[in-house]
Amino acid sequence: MKKIGFIGLGNMGGPMASNLLKAQHEVAVYDIVPSLVESISEQGGIACKSAAEVLCGADLVISMLPASQHVESLYLGDEGIMPLIDTSSIVIDCSTISPASSNKVSTAAQALGIAMLDAPVSGGVGGAVAGSLTFIVGGTEADLEKVRPILEIMGNNIFHAGAAGAGQVAKICNNMLLSVLMTGTAEALQLGVNNGLDAKVLSEIMRKSSGGNWALEVYNPYPGVMDNVPAGNDYQGGFLVDLMIKDLGLAMESALATDSSIPLGALARNLYRLHGSKGAGGKDFSSIQQLFTTR
Amino acid sequence: MKKIGFIGLGNMGGPMASNLLKAQHEVAVYDIVPSLVESISEQGGIACKSAAEVLCGADLVISMLPASQHVESLYLGDEGIMPLIDTSSIVIDCSTISPASSNKVSTAAQALGIAMLDAPVSGGVGGAVAGSLTFIVGGTEADLEKVRPILEIMGNNIFHAGAAGAGQVAKICNNMLLSVLMTGTAEALQLGVNNGLDAKVLSEIMRKSSGGNWALEVYNPYPGVMDNVPAGNDYQGGFLVDLMIKDLGLAMESALATDSSIPLGALARNLYRLHGSKGAGGKDFSSIQQLFTTR
Amino acid sequence: MKKIGFIGLGNMGGPMASNLLKAQHEVAVYDIVPSLVESISEQGGIACKSAAEVLCGADLVISMLPASQHVESLYLGDEGIMPLIDTSSIVIDCSTISPASSNKVSTAAQALGIAMLDAPVSGGVGGAVAGSLTFIVGGTEADLEKVRPILEIMGNNIFHAGAAGAGQVAKICNNMLLSVLMTGTAEALQLGVNNGLDAKVLSEIMRKSSGGNWALEVYNPYPGVMDNVPAGNDYQGGFLVDLMIKDLGLAMESALATDSSIPLGALARNLYRLHGSKGAGGKDFSSIQQLFTTR
Amino acid sequence: MKKIGFIGLGNMGGPMASNLLKAQHEVAVYDIVPSLVESISEQGGIACKSAAEVLCGADLVISMLPASQHVESLYLGDEGIMPLIDTSSIVIDCSTISPASSNKVSTAAQALGIAMLDAPVSGGVGGAVAGSLTFIVGGTEADLEKVRPILEIMGNNIFHAGAAGAGQVAKICNNMLLSVLMTGTAEALQLGVNNGLDAKVLSEIMRKSSGGNWALEVYNPYPGVMDNVPAGNDYQGGFLVDLMIKDLGLAMESALATDSSIPLGALARNLYRLHGSKGAGGKDFSSIQQLFTTR
Repeated sequence: MKKIGFIGLGNMGGPMASNLLKAQHEVAVYDIVPSLVESISEQGGIACKSAAEVLCGADLVISMLPASQHVESLYLGDEGIMPLIDTSSIVIDCSTISPASSNKVSTAAQALGIAMLDAPVSGGVGGAVAGSLTFIVGGTEADLEKVRPILEIMGNNIFHAGAAGAGQVAKICNNMLLSVLMTGTAEALQLGVNNGLDAKVLSEIMRKSSGGNWALEVYNPYPGVMDNVPAGNDYQGGFLVDLMIKDLGLAMESALATDSSIPLGALARNLYRLHGSKGAGGKDFSSIQQLFTTR
Repeated sequence: MKKIGFIGLGNMGGPMASNLLKAQHEVAVYDIVPSLVESISEQGGIACKSAAEVLCGADLVISMLPASQHVESLYLGDEGIMPLIDTSSIVIDCSTISPASSNKVSTAAQALGIAMLDAPVSGGVGGAVAGSLTFIVGGTEADLEKVRPILEIMGNNIFHAGAAGAGQVAKICNNMLLSVLMTGTAEALQLGVNNGLDAKVLSEIMRKSSGGNWALEVYNPYPGVMDNVPAGNDYQGGFLVDLMIKDLGLAMESALATDSSIPLGALARNLYRLHGSKGAGGKDFSSIQQLFTTR
Repeated sequence: MKKIGFIGLGNMGGPMASNLLKAQHEVAVYDIVPSLVESISEQGGIACKSAAEVLCGADLVISMLPASQHVESLYLGDEGIMPLIDTSSIVIDCSTISPASSNKVSTAAQALGIAMLDAPVSGGVGGAVAGSLTFIVGGTEADLEKVRPILEIMGNNIFHAGAAGAGQVAKICNNMLLSVLMTGTAEALQLGVNNGLDAKVLSEIMRKSSGGNWALEVYNPYPGVMDNVPAGNDYQGGFLVDLMIKDLGLAMESALATDSSIPLGALARNLYRLHGSKGAGGKDFSSIQQLFTTR
Repeated sequence: MKKIGFIGLGNMGGPMASNLLKAQHEVAVYDIVPSLVESISEQGGIACKSAAEVLCGADLVISMLPASQHVESLYLGDEGIMPLIDTSSIVIDCSTISPASSNKVSTAAQALGIAMLDAPVSGGVGGAVAGSLTFIVGGTEADLEKVRPILEIMGNNIFHAGAAGAGQVAKICNNMLLSVLMTGTAEALQLGVNNGLDAKVLSEIMRKSSGGNWALEVYNPYPGVMDNVPAGNDYQGGFLVDLMIKDLGLAMESALATDSSIPLGALARNLYRLHGSKGAGGKDFSSIQQLFTTR
C-alpha cells in the first residue's frame, strides 16, 4: 500500500482516484470543487482542504488538471506546492499541457531534488473509469519503474517517451496525427460516397489496404459503418471536439517554439476550429465527418 | 487453362503476364514497345503485332496501361478494340484511371454486351513480381467470381468495391488517404524530433496509440526507424512521388466532378507537387519526410 | 454597322446582346430557350431557330455559354457549327471554360482558317447590363483590334492576355487569386474582431498598408464596413459562391494539367466548396466571411 | 524640443533614433550592445549605461526590441524599468510583439498611472532610415495626439487602431493578410506562366482586375516584372522570410488565444516555414515565389 496525494478530481481525475482506492491504496484528495472531494471521500478517500494537505506523508503526488496555467499555478504559483513536496515523493502530472509548461515545472522539481514525471493519458473518461488508460511518460526510466505498478492500476498501456517533458510532446504529436487521419478518413469516405460507393465497403477496403489507420480500425466516423462508436450515436460522448482543439493548440504552440512546419496539422486544427465554432464543440471529434456532408 | 490476351507490358504488366504464364495459361501479349513483347515471348507468351491480335480466341482480355487517355484510346479510339471483342470474353482493365474514363469505357462495353471489370491494383512492382498485388474491383459480383482464380495468380487480396467504376473510385480514395496519413506521419515525427524525441520511440508509441496507421506499421518514412523500407535506402524504389501525384490528380478530378470538399487531400497533393518539382519525383513517396527537415 | 451572330442569351449573354442592339448593330440571336430568343427579338434582334442560322452573313460570331461542354458541343459536336462558319467571320467565345477546351476549339478554328478569340469576362450581370464588363482576350493582336470597337460596346476594360487560350488562363488565375485574397481578408478581419478591434478601423488600416487588396478597396466582406456591397445586404446578389467554385474548379484542372502547385488556391477552393455545401451556393462569394464567425 | 529616452538601437531603432536627433530633439539612448550606443552618441545622442538611465527627465520613452520576451523583461523583469518611469512620461513601445505580452505590459503601466502606447511599425529598415515608417498605434486617442508630432518625424502614416494592444493586433492581422496575398499572387503567377502566359502581362491584368493587391501594385514577386523590387535582385534585402515567420507566429498565437480559425494564414505560415527551413530565411519574403518554380 502506498500513500498517494491526488489533486484534480474532474471527469478524468475522479475515476482515476477511485481506481487507486479500489486497489487498496491510501489516497488523500483535493479539488477546488468541494463536492468532487466529498464524492471521493465517500469512497474511502481522505478529504483535504488544500493541495498542500494532500502532500502529508505522500509517497506519490498525482495531479490531473485541465490546462497549462492550472498546473503552473498548482506547483509554481504564489501558493505553489512544489517547495512543500518531500524529496522522497515522486510527482506524476497526468495533465495534458504544453511542453514548455511541463519543462518549467519539471525544471523546478529537479532544482529541488524532487523526482517528477509527466504522464499525460489517452483513453478518455471511459478509459479512466475502466482503468484502461494509456500513459505516455516523460522522465527517467528509474522513476517510471518505481511508479509503474500504480500506473497499471489506472491504465494498461504505459509508454516511456524519453526524458522529462517527452510525455507531453509524444502525446501532442500523436493527437495531431490523430486529427489528421480522422479528418483525412472522413474526406476519403465522403469522396467515395459522393461517387456512389458504399461507406462500409470502402471502409473495409481501405482498412485492409495502405489507407489503414486507427479510425478505420476502431472509430469509423461515417454513420452506420461501425457499431458502438460515436458516429452511430449522433456523435455523442467520446473525445470532444473542444478537447481535440485544445490539444491541437498545444501542437501549434510546440511547432512555433521549434520552428517546425506542420501544414496538415495546422489545417486540421483550423478545420476543427471552424467545426467547433458552428456548434460542434461538445460532439465527439469524429463528427468532423459532418463538415464534409451536404446540408 | 485459359486463353488470355494481355495488353501493356510495362513495369507492372510485364511481371503480371509472366505470372500468368508460369501458372500455365496461354497468354497472347501486345505492347507498343516491341522489346517488351519479345521479353514475354521468350517466357512462352504469344507475341502479337497489334492489340486486336491478342483478342483472338481470348477468354479474358487484360489491359494494364499508364493513364486514362491510353485506356480510352485502346478501347474506344479510331482503331479501338472494343467493337472487336467477343461477347464471350471478359475484359479486365487493371490500369489506374479516372472514374470518368472508366465509366466511359465500361458503358461502351455494356452497350455491346461485353462483361468488363475495372480492377486497379496496389502493391507496386514488387507486388507484381511476387504475385501479391491487391486488386480493387468494380463490376458485377458474378463476373468477378468468374475471373477470381486468374486474379489470384497475380495477387492475394481481391476486393469487390461495387458496380462498374467502383474499383477506380475506391483506389483513388485509398491513395488520397494514404498521402494524407503519410504526410501527417512525417509532420508528426519531425515535430517530435524537433522537440528532442527519438523518432523510433515516438513511432512505436503512436503506432500502438490512436495515431496508428499503415505508414507507422510497415512503411515508416523516418530514416533509421525501420529496416527494409525506402526511408532506409535514401528513398530509392517503392511507390514513386510522381505516381502518387498522378493518383492525387485523379482524386482532385473526382472531387471536382462530384462537388466534394477534400481540404487535406488537396493540400497533400500540392505538397507532393512542390516536393516533386524540387527533384523528388523519382523517389519513394515516403520521402515527403524530407520536406519537413531543415536543410 | 456589323452583322453579329450571338449564341447564348442567359443572364450574361442577354444584356450583352441588348447592348449591341442599342449600338445599332444587326444582331441575329439563338438560345436553346425560346423565350430568351423572343425577348431579344422584341428589342430588335433577329430570332433564329438554330445556332447555324445566326451564322448567315455574320461578320462576327459571339458565344456566351455556361461551361466547357456547351462550348465544345456548340462548335465541335455532332451538329457543331465550326465547319459552317465563313472564314471571313471572326469568332469570339466569351464563356469561361477550361484552357484545354478553349484550345481544342481554337485549334479546330485555326485548322479551318477561322479567326477566333477567347474573351471571358468579369463584372457579373451588373457589368453586362451596364456595358462595363472586363474582357480578357486570347488570340492575335490583329484580330483583337478588329473587334475591339464591338467589345467596347459591352465593356470598358479590354486586356490582351496573349495567344489563343490565354484569355481563359488569365481569367482563371485572376479568379483564383481573388478567392484567396477574399478568404484571407475575411480571416484577417475576423481575427482582428475576435481580438477586440473594430472591423471598419482594421479594414482602413490594412487597405492603406501592405495588406491592401481589391476586397478591402471595393468589396469588403465584413457586414457594416462598406455601403453598397453584398456584405451589407445579407450577401445577396453579386458573384455567386457557386460560380466562384466553378472557376476554382477550372483553376484546379489547369494546375493538374500543368503540374503546378497551388496550395492556397486549392485550400480556398475546398473552403468555398464546404461553404457552398452548407447552403451558401446562391450567396455572394464575400459571404465566405460567415465561415469564420461563431454561430 | 522634447527629451526622449530611446531603448533598442538595432537595424530599426538605430535610424529611428537618428531621425529624432536630426529633428533637434534631445535623445538619451541605451542598447545592450555598447557599439550601437556609441554610434548614436557620435550623432549627438546621450549615451546611457542602462535602460533606467534613459528615463531621467524623459518626456517620452520609446522602445524598439526584437520580441515579446525582451519587452516583458525590459519593463517588467527583475530589473524592469516600469516602476521607475515618471507618470508624466508617455511610453511608446514600437516593437512587434504578441497582443498578450503587449497587454501585460500596458496593464502594468496603467496600474501605475503611466500613459503607454503600442506602436508597431511597418516599412522595414528602408522606412526607418527614410523616416517613412507606418505606425499602427494602440492606446488612447489623447495620448496618441500628444506624441503624433514625434511619430511623424519617424514615419508618414500614423494609424490609430484602438485601445491599448490594438496596434499589435492590427499589425499582426495586416501581416498575416500580406503573407496570404503574396503567396497567393506567387501561385497565380506561376500557374499562368506554366500555362504559357507572360508574367508581366498577367501581372498587369490582375493588378487592374479583382485580383489587384499590394504585391502586384508595388512588390511583384516574379523576377523581371518590376524594377527596384527584391525579385529583381535575387530577393536580397527587403522584409526577410524569418521576420515574416515571426509575425505569422504571433498571428497563430493570437488565433489560438481567441479561438479563431485562420486556415489560409496558417497554411501561409507553414509554407513560409518550409521555405525558411530550406535556406531562404535571410531572403526577402517575396522569394516565396521560388517555392512554386520547378528546379
